[in-house]
Parts: sequence; structure tokens; C-alpha cells
Amino acid sequence: MIVEMRTGTIPEEIDGVVKRAKSLGLGVQLNLGTDKTVVAILGSNTGQLSTDTFAVLPGVERVTRIMKPYKLASREFKSETSLVYINGIEIGGKRIAVMAGPCAVESEEQLMEAARVVKECGACILRGGAFKPRTSPFSFQGLEKVGLELLARAKERYGMPVITEAVDPHHVNMVAKYADILQVGSRNMQNFALLTAIGKSKSPVVLKRGFSSTVTEWLTAADYLLAGENNQVILCERGIRTFEDSTRFSLDISSIAVIKKFSHLPVIVDPSHAAGHYSLVPAIAKAAVAAGADGLLIEVHPNPKEALVDGLQSLTPSDFARLMEELRSIAKSVGKYI
Amino acid sequence: MIVEMRTGTIPEEIDGVVKRAKSLGLGVQLNLGTDKTVVAILGSNTGQLSTDTFAVLPGVERVTRIMKPYKLASREFKSETSLVYINGIEIGGKRIAVMAGPCAVESEEQLMEAARVVKECGACILRGGAFKPRTSPFSFQGLEKVGLELLARAKERYGMPVITEAVDPHHVNMVAKYADILQVGSRNMQNFALLTAIGKSKSPVVLKRGFSSTVTEWLTAADYLLAGENNQVILCERGIRTFEDSTRFSLDISSIAVIKKFSHLPVIVDPSHAAGHYSLVPAIAKAAVAAGADGLLIEVHPNPKEALVDGLQSLTPSDFARLMEELRSIAKSVGKYI
Amino acid sequence: MIVEMRTGTIPEEIDGVVKRAKSLGLGVQLNLGTDKTVVAILGSNTGQLSTDTFAVLPGVERVTRIMKPYKLASREFKSETSLVYINGIEIGGKRIAVMAGPCAVESEEQLMEAARVVKECGACILRGGAFKPRTSPFSFQGLEKVGLELLARAKERYGMPVITEAVDPHHVNMVAKYADILQVGSRNMQNFALLTAIGKSKSPVVLKRGFSSTVTEWLTAADYLLAGENNQVILCERGIRTFEDSTRFSLDISSIAVIKKFSHLPVIVDPSHAAGHYSLVPAIAKAAVAAGADGLLIEVHPNPKEALVDGLQSLTPSDFARLMEELRSIAKSVGKYI
Amino acid sequence: MIVEMRTGTIPEEIDGVVKRAKSLGLGVQLNLGTDKTVVAILGSNTGQLSTDTFAVLPGVERVTRIMKPYKLASREFKSETSLVYINGIEIGGKRIAVMAGPCAVESEEQLMEAARVVKECGACILRGGAFKPRTSPFSFQGLEKVGLELLARAKERYGMPVITEAVDPHHVNMVAKYADILQVGSRNMQNFALLTAIGKSKSPVVLKRGFSSTVTEWLTAADYLLAGENNQVILCERGIRTFEDSTRFSLDISSIAVIKKFSHLPVIVDPSHAAGHYSLVPAIAKAAVAAGADGLLIEVHPNPKEALVDGLQSLTPSDFARLMEELRSIAKSVGKYI
Repeated sequence: MIVEMRTGTIPEEIDGVVKRAKSLGLGVQLNLGTDKTVVAILGSNTGQLSTDTFAVLPGVERVTRIMKPYKLASREFKSETSLVYINGIEIGGKRIAVMAGPCAVESEEQLMEAARVVKECGACILRGGAFKPRTSPFSFQGLEKVGLELLARAKERYGMPVITEAVDPHHVNMVAKYADILQVGSRNMQNFALLTAIGKSKSPVVLKRGFSSTVTEWLTAADYLLAGENNQVILCERGIRTFEDSTRFSLDISSIAVIKKFSHLPVIVDPSHAAGHYSLVPAIAKAAVAAGADGLLIEVHPNPKEALVDGLQSLTPSDFARLMEELRSIAKSVGKYI
Repeated sequence: MIVEMRTGTIPEEIDGVVKRAKSLGLGVQLNLGTDKTVVAILGSNTGQLSTDTFAVLPGVERVTRIMKPYKLASREFKSETSLVYINGIEIGGKRIAVMAGPCAVESEEQLMEAARVVKECGACILRGGAFKPRTSPFSFQGLEKVGLELLARAKERYGMPVITEAVDPHHVNMVAKYADILQVGSRNMQNFALLTAIGKSKSPVVLKRGFSSTVTEWLTAADYLLAGENNQVILCERGIRTFEDSTRFSLDISSIAVIKKFSHLPVIVDPSHAAGHYSLVPAIAKAAVAAGADGLLIEVHPNPKEALVDGLQSLTPSDFARLMEELRSIAKSVGKYI
Repeated sequence: MIVEMRTGTIPEEIDGVVKRAKSLGLGVQLNLGTDKTVVAILGSNTGQLSTDTFAVLPGVERVTRIMKPYKLASREFKSETSLVYINGIEIGGKRIAVMAGPCAVESEEQLMEAARVVKECGACILRGGAFKPRTSPFSFQGLEKVGLELLARAKERYGMPVITEAVDPHHVNMVAKYADILQVGSRNMQNFALLTAIGKSKSPVVLKRGFSSTVTEWLTAADYLLAGENNQVILCERGIRTFEDSTRFSLDISSIAVIKKFSHLPVIVDPSHAAGHYSLVPAIAKAAVAAGADGLLIEVHPNPKEALVDGLQSLTPSDFARLMEELRSIAKSVGKYI
Repeated sequence: MIVEMRTGTIPEEIDGVVKRAKSLGLGVQLNLGTDKTVVAILGSNTGQLSTDTFAVLPGVERVTRIMKPYKLASREFKSETSLVYINGIEIGGKRIAVMAGPCAVESEEQLMEAARVVKECGACILRGGAFKPRTSPFSFQGLEKVGLELLARAKERYGMPVITEAVDPHHVNMVAKYADILQVGSRNMQNFALLTAIGKSKSPVVLKRGFSSTVTEWLTAADYLLAGENNQVILCERGIRTFEDSTRFSLDISSIAVIKKFSHLPVIVDPSHAAGHYSLVPAIAKAAVAAGADGLLIEVHPNPKEALVDGLQSLTPSDFARLMEELRSIAKSVGKYI
């Protein structure tokens, strides 16, 4: 941590900073610069220390963190890339894992048809929401437990692992009984009660990026999962909120390379929620694979016109089939396969 | 809802839109404009209908919502201003309700001293966090139940109602036993499981704005509380995330007037989390009162230098006393009092 | 345009809207909905009309634009894709045009070496800044006219067209004498005096997106160029400002598909300014080609460590050579070539 | 400047940083921390040095600036508050300077009536645009020179100084002949050619904040004016672009206190462009005065319904008269007057 003192600070104030550091068992290095005094605070756990520890002291102008606030998710903590295994499917290696299916489980017929189609096209994991966090209390909230049972049935029939969202910390174990991967939605990325429960469950988990969270906050949220000794953590970029209104969210394509640089965790991309419109999904999905994503989470609906939730961003089976062809070609050009 | 058809649409596509509307019991009005066909969908519940209902149909270019997605929180639903009563303190009327106290309850000594000071200066409600949602799992997470007990003791000793945050839907009833007002934090504004539980509890509640939520989403989240027939809802503006980095968040001062225009609910302001630095808190607090806020939620710590959480944005007792004097003067100039 | 009246509006107010529309030669269609009266304003030029025309009238709650505010840049105005030709190089077709070179022209030696390297690697256009808009007046502002002369020399020696930025409306003709393509920088996207001058010059132009401009505003700015009967317009996505701070700007990868959908103009991508760090440039560049970009604008410096401007985001010659190989493979997988 | 080396850096890399610093005449202090090596670069002009100078060197992970990039606008450069005098009106002291008038000069009748009204209500400076930077080339672009002549006539008749916008560096001297204060619009905050020309003109100037510029960039842009030895610089907060869409821009109320803390320049607020709707202007204007603004720039139109530009955000004469009464009361409560 770098503590910058105000111009004209007095020796007692500098001394106060030094004493606070020493009381915490930290080292100190003083730079008596010509314009400003700068105090460097040294120690191996300063990333987990609040900058306020020093910023509140008299004479301090600004405190800058050098160590990142996340720890377990960082490449500095674990330099080799983590691989997550879901029923034998390796995520984080040469294979691009495509997870596809409807936004919400609506009926047995709809889910089975979706599962059949996405499997046929080459998806390896089935997605489908049973608990739906909806902006308005008057919107369809999902089939809940019935939806989980349908997912389990589709899994059995098509031999595909399933991923579904958990929204309440007290449902985690129940959802984990039915699903192979738990999903933490964007609005819950900092629902720490939920993260703690999933961390303890040790279930594989996809942690979606909060739509207004920095990459740093996202990796720090992953620390909640990893701190529970759950190592089966996959990150999912799904777009951030910006001023641009021609898409629902702005997919932060650069975050893939940033994650690869600073973290050992695999990262997948959800092009559907970012786009908000089916016509934009293919371009974003292809870009994600070219940029180095380890997988995709795509909404496919047998009949988007009748979808209860997010029909506009769902691909039809034929659009999905075409996209998968294009993705195979891109995957090959970056040394991977689907 | 306004359904705009693509240039060159064919009659069958327009017909598809009309049929979908009629199947939902909605009226239709066709505008056969020179350049584009526009279909107006009429009915009293179109605000709660997803735009996707029509946007997925062939030939549709764009769908624009005319009715707002929130209902119970709107002035159209209830035109007179709502007042919330906390132990006889009216919120939403002529009195500016100042809620003050430490970010986190740290010890009996700290809390009692804070309560004494804020009461002396004229605050009418004591704030203090027992459950602290923290970005990193390695940070202090609050005293939890012990913190609630300390709050209850301070309430008794100083005769001030208390407000504290609830973070887990299964703790709501327990927290409501100790606290007079539940607080929903910014990161939980769209934690719908939590909102539903608080809606059912009928406890007075302060709903903080999600730091990346629009006013429209904020009022729609309030609908979750109001739908549970909990009418004791107070909104709290606390800053939004923008590119500006000289403050922790950018306080959206205009949202106060926007809320007053479109909603009947009272709205207070938290200048501390927006500012992130004690030196900026007074200016924002004064601006909030001048702009029409019904109250303030301010962090005050007997000794910010020793605070475990957010010390940098906490006022000292003497700074708070000075600010209260200034606020009284501003309140008077807008026809209110503290 | 859709004019939504306030609940409880009176007939005189509706009449006021109708009269205003008719006075402008526009048609009107009334929808007397159950909850709200909505007036549709019809006519072929309503996109260029301000919404305020109606929003200021008594009884009006909100006005929504249906026609887009841009006209000449829209696919509705010109449905076939525009191709721009620079010394025989077609931009907007099957070829991915790679424009590369240093951020700023620093010396003859530096520019010639850069030109040699980028040509050897397969770039077809040389970039280099002679006028540099810098955040601080104390930073290097470019070699100005001397820089233009060096660009002309490099162009002659290596047979590559050159692109350079114009920053002052009164320099446009001078810059156009030396350069094959004028560049409008991000900070000047809404410098209408400059756009008007370039529109009149009829020089080919790359219009960078303002870092806080929507796609709609970007296309409306392009209308300034096209209105001057300059049809040689290329758009350039270069990242938008968001809250994320791990990159300099957030590249809006979706904008490529959005532009292709709503406009006939070619669009290229500048991964260097978005990334802000050389290590992130390749992932973004590959994503851009996969997403359908018509070209790339990349910073390459013979020796980034000695660069006077933006060295951190410049590729070394060997990094650039490696990237070009990867890009060729991606281009092929989407049916294009470099 | 703080240079943080990568974990596992080698002595040669650290040495490279030290040598680069010494070659620039800067001092160096090494912190050989347990986890990371951190090099502090010392010297009085490091604020004007690019962080890239060190970030490009091998082994460097990150460079953090300690000194701010602006210099002449900073309180460290000049600790006493600057006052600007316009025809004897002091700006930056106890008086709240209210500048009011129409967005655009439309006709003699409109301007004279506006001038009469705002003077009567207590405004001390007349605003009115002659050159209007408009998003679309098909919108009204202002009366240009005729508008300037009308402003000069209004100034003479009502004895009020006038403020108007300059948009082209080559018009600066001409505009300065007619106007008492030049205005740099939000879209031109980083039009450095324009800033340089105005800096040289030595005319009093209001520098509006770019709607996506940080406070730091805004003050750095002010350095362009101050570097031309123009000391008559007034800043104007007018709202920033965020995701919120209930207002045109989000007024950054905190920026007033931030400016007062870090700069010696006076700062005024434009509530009209931020609000975008007349009904929200009074709340924002009152908040600005309470927060410490030195003045206001408000749009008033004799008949907003007929305004050619921005009628929706213009106050009527009677709304303005009422607001001025309220503002007087707030001003008094913060120890100022209008």
C-alpha cells in the first residue's frame, strides 16, 4: 500500500502512519520526496487490508492499493490454469464447452425438445432456469421445484449434465441435488450469503459477472466460493451496464484476456443476455471464442415466439445449428475444438 | 405498447401482431404511416407485459413501452404522498428525518457513544450494521446477532428507533424483532428472495437504490415489497456507479425530484457511501435537503480512525454537530425542519 | 413520433398536439386508450424533428421517437453496403484492411522502420499521428507539418496509403494534401465544425466513435460527413468509457453487428486504444475480425519502450507479426482474407 | 510515481527502471518488499510525465501516478481561491452569479423579452447561443453572426454582460468582440485547438465539463486555458453520461465539493442540460447552491413552447421568478446572496 501524505504534512503525522503500520505487523519504507512524502506499507497480506486503515489518519491525502484485493482467484496464488470437470467434460482446456437451452424451463415438452436440439447441434451441457429472478413481481417467476425435476429428467434422457440458477442460500443443497452446475446470476454476484452457501456445497458453479462489477470485484466474489474450498469455479462474462442502448448490456470482450492474465479460473461468455436480440448473438459468440473464452452459455428455444421469458434473445434451433458450424471453424483457427 | 414494424413489412406480419394482442385481451390501433406501420397496443396492464411478447414476432422492428413497468409504487396508482411512521416519527412530511450512527456495530462502548452523540445533535433514528455485506470474504463481516442485541440495548437506553440491514431472507423475522426499520442494501436491491421475505414481514423498510439500477428498476423493486402488502417503504438514494473516480459513487441528486414526480413513496439520501470521504459528506447532505429529500442516512463514528469499516467516510461527532446546524438552516429555507 | 398524454388530460390539450402536428404538415392518429391517450405523429421526416416540438406542449407526458435521428448513414436510406476505395484497396468487402503504424510520428527513422515492418507483415495502410490531441498541454503535441511530410515520404518509399488525424477545421485541406485518409479522433466525433470541413473536402475519412457516444449519435455524426456529399466514410469502434478500469476503454464488440444491421457504412476496430496495454491487443483484434469488422487500426512501434506517446499499447514488430498470422487464420474462418 | 514490479522480477529489470528515472533527472527509492518490489520515482514534475514512461519497461506490472496530471488549475499550485470579474461582477465570492436566458438566440423580440425578464428576476448575466453545436446536421444551427449582434444589442439595452458559445478556434476573436464571457461547450472540452485559441485570447471563459470527462480531465483541460495565461476561467458542471435515463444527464453534485478541494477556480452549475425537463430544474438548481456552487447557468425562454432548441428544459418567466425566490432563501442559509 502506498500512503501519500498531504503537502506540508508535519513529522507527527508521518509518525502516526508508521505506528499504525507497525501495530499491524507491517513493514514501512519512507520516501521523503521533494514535493510529497510517500510511505510504502510492506507485507504479504496488504491486499486484504482496507485502504481506510491509513486513509483516515491525519495528514494522509490518498492511499493506493498495490496488492489486489482478491487472493485465492489470482494467478499469483495459483499459477497453473484451473480445469473444472463436469461429468467428464473438461472446462478450461482445448474444448470450447457450449452450454445451451431455454432461458426458463416452461414445460416438459419445451425442455425435451430444446435438449434434443442443442445436443444434436453439439452442445455438451443443457441450461434451463427453474428459479427466475425477475425485475417485476408480476412477471413469471419460474416453475421452481417442478422445473428442477424436469431438468433431471432431460439430463437422464439425453445424457447431458445440466446447469441451473440458485437464488436463495437455503435452496442451494436442494438445487445441487438436481443440477450438475449451479449458476449464480448477475444480480447475485455480491449476494454473499448465497456465495457462502455455494462455497460450502462444493458443487461446481458458474459465477456470472455482476452487470456493474469490475473484474477485480468479480474475482473477489470468486474468493467467497474458493474460501469455502470449492475449487470448481467457472466465471461467466455476460455484459456490463453502460450508456449504450442498442444492446441490453455491453459485452466486455476484453475481460476474457484480463481474466486469463490475472486469474487461473476458466471463463465462459453468455452472448444472449448481452445482446438482448437474437440477431446480434452470433457475432458476439464468435468474437468470444476468438478472444479465448473457454465456453459459451447460449439461449436456445424450440419456439422463441412462444417463450415466457427472454424470447427475443433466444436462437431458434436452425439459427443455433448454423452458429455452431461457424463456431467450429473459429475454434479451429485458435487451436481449439467444440 | 407501441409496436413499430420494419420498412417493407407484409400484411400477414401486421396481422400476426394484431392476433397476438387480441389473444391477450388487448386492444389494437393501427397507424398506416407513410414510411412505417406502427401498431399501438392498448389495455390497462400493458406495463406488466414484457415487450418481448411482440418483439419476437416476424416483421417487428422495435417495441416501446408506454406504461411504466412498476405499478404499486407509482403516483398513477396512488396519487397522494405516502407517509411512513416509525415509533411516532413521521417520514415523508415536513420533518427531515436524520438517521445517523456507525457503519458497523463494533462494541457496546462504540455504539452507546455514537448513539449518545447523534441523539444530542438532533438525529432521530440510530443506524448501525450487524450483518455487513463485504466485498472480500477476508474482511470483518459484522457482529451479527450480538450486534442486534447491542442495537436493542442502545434503542432502550436512548429512546431512539434503530435501523439495520438484513441480508438473508431467512433472517428477516429475527432482525425485525430487534430493529424498527430493516435496510435493504444496494447490492441486494434485486435480491428478490430477500424483498419477498421483507414484503411479507410488513416491517418498515429502507430500500437502497442498486448502485447500477435505474430509477425505474428501483421503483419496480419497491413493487416486490408493496406487493407483500408492506406499505412502510422508504427509498434511499446512495449514489450510482459511473466513470468518475474522485468519489466512491456519483450521487444522483436529480433522482429525488424524479421519485417525487413518479412515485408516492418518501425518499432519503445516504451521502456517506456516495462520497466515500468525510470531507465531501456535508456538501452532498446539504444538497439533498435542498433538493427535497425526506431524510438522511449518515455515518458517524465516535472515533473514525479506529473504525473497522468505512472509517474514511464517517463524520466525527464534532463534524456531525456542525453539519446538523447547517442542515437546520437549509431545511428552514425549504419550509421544513429537523 | 409517439406522444403520450398525461393521465387525466383534457380535450384542449390533445387538440393542441394535433394542431402543432398539422401546422408542420404532419399526419396524426389518435389512440384513445383506456388509461392514456396516445397520439401518433406521422410523416417521413419525423426522425429529424426534435421530440421537444411536442414534449413542451401542455398535457404531454412523454414523446418517443420512432424514426431514427440519422438518415444518410442508415440502411433504410441506402440498403446496399457501401465500399470505400483507397488507392485501389477496397474497404467493406472480403478483405480485412489492416492499418498499422506508430501512434505518433516521432522521426524519419522511426516512421520508416515502422512502415517497413508493418508492410512486411501484411498491413495495407500506414497510420501515424502528426497532430496529437493530448489531455495535458504539457505533453508532446506531435510534429505537425513536419510529421505530414514524413508520412508523405514513407508513403512514397513503401507504396502504402497513409491515414492521419486532422484536429482543426482550417487544417483539413492541408492535411488532405498529404494523407489518403483523414482520421477524426474520438474526442472530435461531435466537433461539428471539423466534420463539416471534412465533409466538404470529400477526402476519405475514418470517423472514430466518441468514447461516450451511442451508436445512434455516431451514425448521426456520420450524417454531417455524408451531408457534405463525402461518401468515403469508414466508421471506427475504439472502445467506450465505462466503470471498468482494467482496460483503458471497454471495446463495444457488439457495435460491429449493430452497425452492420442499421447502416451501410464499413466499420473497422482500433484494439490498441481500448486495451491500453499491448498484452490485451491480440485478443481484442481477433474478436473484432470474428465479429465481422472490415478492418483494424493497430499501433505498432519499432521500439515501444522509447515511444513518445502511448508506448504501452503499441505492439513490437515481432508481436505484430505473430498477431497477423493469427488474424489470417480467423479471417479465413469467417470467409475473408487479409 | 509508483512503479510496481512483477512477482519474480530479476535485478536487471529493476535496474532498467532506475536507469530510465535517472536519465530523466528523477530520484528513485527502492522498496524491496517481501512479495513485490516497488520503486518510487521522485521529482517535482512527475505529474506531467506519462505513466507509460515506466510501464513499457520489462518486468513492470503497473505504474500509479501520485502527482495529479493537472498543474495550473490545482490548489497546490495556487492555494488562494481565484475570483473572476465580469464588468464588475465578482464570481467565486459571496455572490451567487445567475446567468440566464434562452438556449439559442432566435430573434430580436425573443432575446429582448428574455433579457428583460431575467434581469427583472435578478439574473446578472445574459446567456444565449449564436453558434449551436447540434447532434444532427439537419437541425437549426443558430443565427451565427446575426445572433452575436443581437446579444450585443441586448447587452447595451439591459446593461447585462453576455455569455455565448464559441465552437471554432478561428471565430474566437470575433466572438470575444461581442461577448463578455466565452463558453466552451461540453462536446468541446477536449477540443484542444479551441482551448488554445481561447487561452491566447485572454477572454473570460466558462469551461463546461465534458459529459464523459472525469474531474481530473476537466481540470487538465483548464490547464490549456491557464497555460495561455488566461486567468479568467470559470468551470461549469452540467451533468455526466450514465446509464440512468430519467434525466438527460446525471448532474454530478459531488463535483462541486471535489473542485473546491482540489482547485482554486470558481465553479457554476447548469441544471437545465442535466435535467432535460423543466420540472426537474428547480430541485437541481437549489441543490447546487446548497452544495457550494458559485453560480448557475439556467435556460429561460419567454415562450418555451415555441423554442427552436431545447424548449423542454427551459423555464418560463414565471417559473424562473419563483425559482429565484427559493434560491435567495437557500443562498442566505449558506451565507451567500444572489
